[in-house]
Amino acid sequence: MSPDNRAPAGGVRAARGAARTAPGWPQEAALRMLQNNLDPEVAERPDDLVVYGGTGRAARDWPSYHALVRTLRTLRDDETMLVQSGRPVGVLRTHEWAPRVLLANSNLVGDWATWPEFRRLEQLGLTMYGQMTAGSWIYIGTQGILQGTYETFAAVAAKRFGGSLAGTLTLTAGCGGMGGAQPLAVTMNGGACLVVDVDQTRLDRRQRDRYLDEVAGSLDEALHRALAARRDRRALSVGVVGNAATVFPELLRRGVAIDIVTDQTSAHDPLSYVPEGVELADAAQYARTKPAEFTDRARASMAKHVEAMVGFLDAGAEVFDYGNSIRGEAKLGGYERAFEFPGFVPAYIRPLFCEGKGPFRWAALSGDPADIAATDRAILELFPENESLARWIRLAGERVAFQGLPARICWLGYGERDRAGVRFNEMVASGELSAPVVIGRDHLDCGSVASPYRETEAMADGSDAIADWPLLNAMVNTASGASWVSIHHGGGVGIGRSIHAGQVCVADGSALAGQKIERVLTNDPAMGVIRHVDAGYDDARAVAARTGVRIPMAEA
Amino acid sequence: MSPDNRAPAGGVRAARGAARTAPGWPQEAALRMLQNNLDPEVAERPDDLVVYGGTGRAARDWPSYHALVRTLRTLRDDETMLVQSGRPVGVLRTHEWAPRVLLANSNLVGDWATWPEFRRLEQLGLTMYGQMTAGSWIYIGTQGILQGTYETFAAVAAKRFGGSLAGTLTLTAGCGGMGGAQPLAVTMNGGACLVVDVDQTRLDRRQRDRYLDEVAGSLDEALHRALAARRDRRALSVGVVGNAATVFPELLRRGVAIDIVTDQTSAHDPLSYVPEGVELADAAQYARTKPAEFTDRARASMAKHVEAMVGFLDAGAEVFDYGNSIRGEAKLGGYERAFEFPGFVPAYIRPLFCEGKGPFRWAALSGDPADIAATDRAILELFPENESLARWIRLAGERVAFQGLPARICWLGYGERDRAGVRFNEMVASGELSAPVVIGRDHLDCGSVASPYRETEAMADGSDAIADWPLLNAMVNTASGASWVSIHHGGGVGIGRSIHAGQVCVADGSALAGQKIERVLTNDPAMGVIRHVDAGYDDARAVAARTGVRIPMAEA
Ligand SMILES: NC(=O)c1ccc[n+]([C@@H]2O[C@H](COP(=O)([O-])OP(=O)(O)OC[C@H]3O[C@@H](n4cnc5c(N)ncnc54)[C@H](O)[C@@H]3O)[C@@H](O)[C@H]2O)c1
Ligand SMILES: NC(=O)c1ccc[n+]([C@@H]2O[C@H](COP(=O)([O-])OP(=O)(O)OC[C@H]3O[C@@H](n4cnc5c(N)ncnc54)[C@H](O)[C@@H]3O)[C@@H](O)[C@H]2O)c1
Repeated sequence: MSPDNRAPAGGVRAARGAARTAPGWPQEAALRMLQNNLDPEVAERPDDLVVYGGTGRAARDWPSYHALVRTLRTLRDDETMLVQSGRPVGVLRTHEWAPRVLLANSNLVGDWATWPEFRRLEQLGLTMYGQMTAGSWIYIGTQGILQGTYETFAAVAAKRFGGSLAGTLTLTAGCGGMGGAQPLAVTMNGGACLVVDVDQTRLDRRQRDRYLDEVAGSLDEALHRALAARRDRRALSVGVVGNAATVFPELLRRGVAIDIVTDQTSAHDPLSYVPEGVELADAAQYARTKPAEFTDRARASMAKHVEAMVGFLDAGAEVFDYGNSIRGEAKLGGYERAFEFPGFVPAYIRPLFCEGKGPFRWAALSGDPADIAATDRAILELFPENESLARWIRLAGERVAFQGLPARICWLGYGERDRAGVRFNEMVASGELSAPVVIGRDHLDCGSVASPYRETEAMADGSDAIADWPLLNAMVNTASGASWVSIHHGGGVGIGRSIHAGQVCVADGSALAGQKIERVLTNDPAMGVIRHVDAGYDDARAVAARTGVRIPMAEA
Repeated sequence: MSPDNRAPAGGVRAARGAARTAPGWPQEAALRMLQNNLDPEVAERPDDLVVYGGTGRAARDWPSYHALVRTLRTLRDDETMLVQSGRPVGVLRTHEWAPRVLLANSNLVGDWATWPEFRRLEQLGLTMYGQMTAGSWIYIGTQGILQGTYETFAAVAAKRFGGSLAGTLTLTAGCGGMGGAQPLAVTMNGGACLVVDVDQTRLDRRQRDRYLDEVAGSLDEALHRALAARRDRRALSVGVVGNAATVFPELLRRGVAIDIVTDQTSAHDPLSYVPEGVELADAAQYARTKPAEFTDRARASMAKHVEAMVGFLDAGAEVFDYGNSIRGEAKLGGYERAFEFPGFVPAYIRPLFCEGKGPFRWAALSGDPADIAATDRAILELFPENESLARWIRLAGERVAFQGLPARICWLGYGERDRAGVRFNEMVASGELSAPVVIGRDHLDCGSVASPYRETEAMADGSDAIADWPLLNAMVNTASGASWVSIHHGGGVGIGRSIHAGQVCVADGSALAGQKIERVLTNDPAMGVIRHVDAGYDDARAVAARTGVRIPMAEA
């Protein structure tokens, strides 16, 4: 094996500080963010180049990784490197306003867009799975999950409970990798949370990480504590061991005063959902040896579980599916009313998308947490009227441990992102920040994704599957001055089910960077406003009218 | 009906001449080319906004058309209009190097990428079918088909017959819309051609249009004339009425000296291929009333037809499938050896793609045929060593009637397109041309398409379905200075089967246009070289090495 075919000895870690080895900061930033995605502090399986989300990779293989590094270190300010599913395939002369890197990951022609065909091609070394931010070099660790969950509960609070969850009780289940963010997201919004998981070790781990406040010894005890917190308007999260298919109906029967119900058990895969009557210790082996029987039992349990959720809905609670397909599985399990409650995107996120809001994020190339603290203060100064944002920034500063380069995420909308970005660039110029900052976002954003099972579920005009939008988004960002731009297929919900685009800008303090940032961070969220105006949302129309986003069809 | 919902009275026709109504030439050019695509001289069904290729449209509906015109007339030099499947959805501030128009047409998320779902969404008014050059405003009439066919036969000549078809006899069938270009393409390459069609009226029409030289009264007479032309090395095309499933086996049995065999009957749709023993006059009604029975009989006939083609192959002839799926249908008809001969792309076009060659085209915004004559001369001067190109330019000047704005197409490769484009721009600047010129291409190009049944059939590394390439191509052209850039789905082979991208540059004589043209027309064909290097083609590697196209994986 040639050395080029191996991971660097000691693993990958991005350089820190204000000295660069690449010809310009956009190139240096791409290099550091690629490396940061593969930092063992950040990546799930760095040796396999897997960053997160199943097999979401940052580079196709180690030879590709080394070639990426080599090429970025020599890439000039009017050149662009092309990356095809994690492998650098060319360098072309473009111009100073052009992105330094263009990436396309995991894309397949429609009739071939299936997991088996994808895996076959991956085996041949022809592609890689880019997920959303893995292959586009802007993953920043689990902060993103926490913030997304926080934002969803903040939206629930805004819609139904006057902007805070204080004095409410949320019931949920599943305290795993994603689901474990729920109790903290609820308490960050001021609420009380009761979370049910079959697996004691999951609850214990979340308590150790301070995502969960307490683990109760019994359902009665858990209820007692949670209801007391609700009454006193205290933020508190309590975990309890149990099967949701048993516990949810029991709580419904008892008429417990529950305000919000959701779920993040691993319902998307019926072999991962533990059926009632099956011991946790036996579940994995049982699922392996009798998958069909296990699936039937899991679905029957999910039918009971969802039936109780609909019972809470009938009793007046706020109930939603949190993107784990439990409604579909419950329906397969024979429960007809499963789709009576909505998915979280149409219920809470769509109104934010109409304002061009989405998961804005940035990372400090200095490696210095003080730089993020300074940007946190800048955000608070820029948007003093936004209470939920202020609460998040304050709590994140206290609670979120950085992984790899210090980073922050918060949701900002049209007219906000550009202001934040331009301000950060000024702070780099003035020396308030000790090195440049990269500014990007998740592909899960208002105008950058077509994903009919999640982000574009139930669009008002039925345009869920129309995929022109993420492609226009990528081209617009390429045309506006982004530092790198990516188009991916299959992130989040899997191959065949989504197309999405990403962009990252680099604030190096130069005047040119300031102009680029102003345009990209105006146009990128504008795509969200435009997409939702086109689909007929009045909220988006109002934003466009107020802010002057041009809609040709309305100018007759 | 509001007036905005109607076609303009008297139809659509682009303005001519050197005075513009839009703020800049790129905008004016987009406006004229949109209108030119819908000119009744150019479009198949202009009232329905259908340009060509089934239902390939230039705009979604008349209100969209009017909004496009209105928006282009006011679009500033640092603004970009976004077009989502033929409808203008936004205008954003970008910069001077950015495209003035970005288009995404007919794109769907993979699992929804089927004709029925597409048609459902089209009925809802949410999308349109863009084909390749219809929705990207660079269709120039049937010249494109003729040139593509000419180029294919030129490639056959280069591969097997020393660069000319003089002294060879080509046997083919199908003298319809596309197939009718075959006899002329063969004679333009110096060869003799015998073309079989069941429909006398088709042959007569092609003779009237001078695409076909003669129609013989019998097979014996046709053979006599064709073989005489072959012997005398004369260019001659002869049509004869007959069913290919009968005539091809008969010619094989007689041992006629045939050098090249192909076919362009409408085999892609078994209800359009006339089975043996069915009268032409009865075929349409029979297909409608008994589609299953008709299909079985058509496939049985195609099996005989293809069996004869394989017979010619065994006897040493050059045999290829010309993109009409006749091999697949013959196999369904029970003939096992159907795939013994190749598709035309792997057989002849792939080597051209390795050199970055593809369908380069341009149109004179002056409307003056003298401008095209001047560019024709410029091409002959620039590439004096390319004989097949010179023959095409000369013959096209004599034989091709312009439709709409005068235009020309020819295949040029990496290192050639940029020279031609820069020269055209100089000619605009110097006044040798009386108005600006648009320079574009078909989406069917070396580095801009993923289409496993045609352009990317049988890639050396198995990467036929990898769709990263057209997306990178679109982003690169957006980043290099193209005037408009498009990403489409489903052109040529249909929904679910292809993803492809296009670009158009405007030569307005300015220095900025010259710089943009130089970069776009270098980078766009470079994508073809890069794509084929990556797939392992030695020819492409040699071109990259010779011309200095950078391949990061080879720089270890
Ligand atoms: N909201 C989003 O944006 C989003 C995004 C991606 C995925 N998801 C979905 O969220 C779900 C959770 O993801 P994760 O990463 O936390 O999964 P995970 O496998 O890490 O955790 C699932 C948890 O559910 C528990 N569980 C299983 N069956 C149970 C039962 N019957 N009763 C109580 N608890 C049970 C398990 O013990 C485990 O702790 C998945 O289905 C995932 O696809 C949501
Ligand atoms: N090479 C390419 O790039 C390319 C591109 C697009 C389409 N095609 C395919 O080429 C084919 C021809 O296209 P077209 O537009 O000319 O179609 P068309 O329908 O206009 O013409 C087909 C012709 O075939 C004749 N025909 C039908 N059955 C016959 C038989 N048994 N024997 C002899 N003649 C018969 C018809 O009379 C007709 O004249 C189609 O299948 C099309 O999909 C090729």
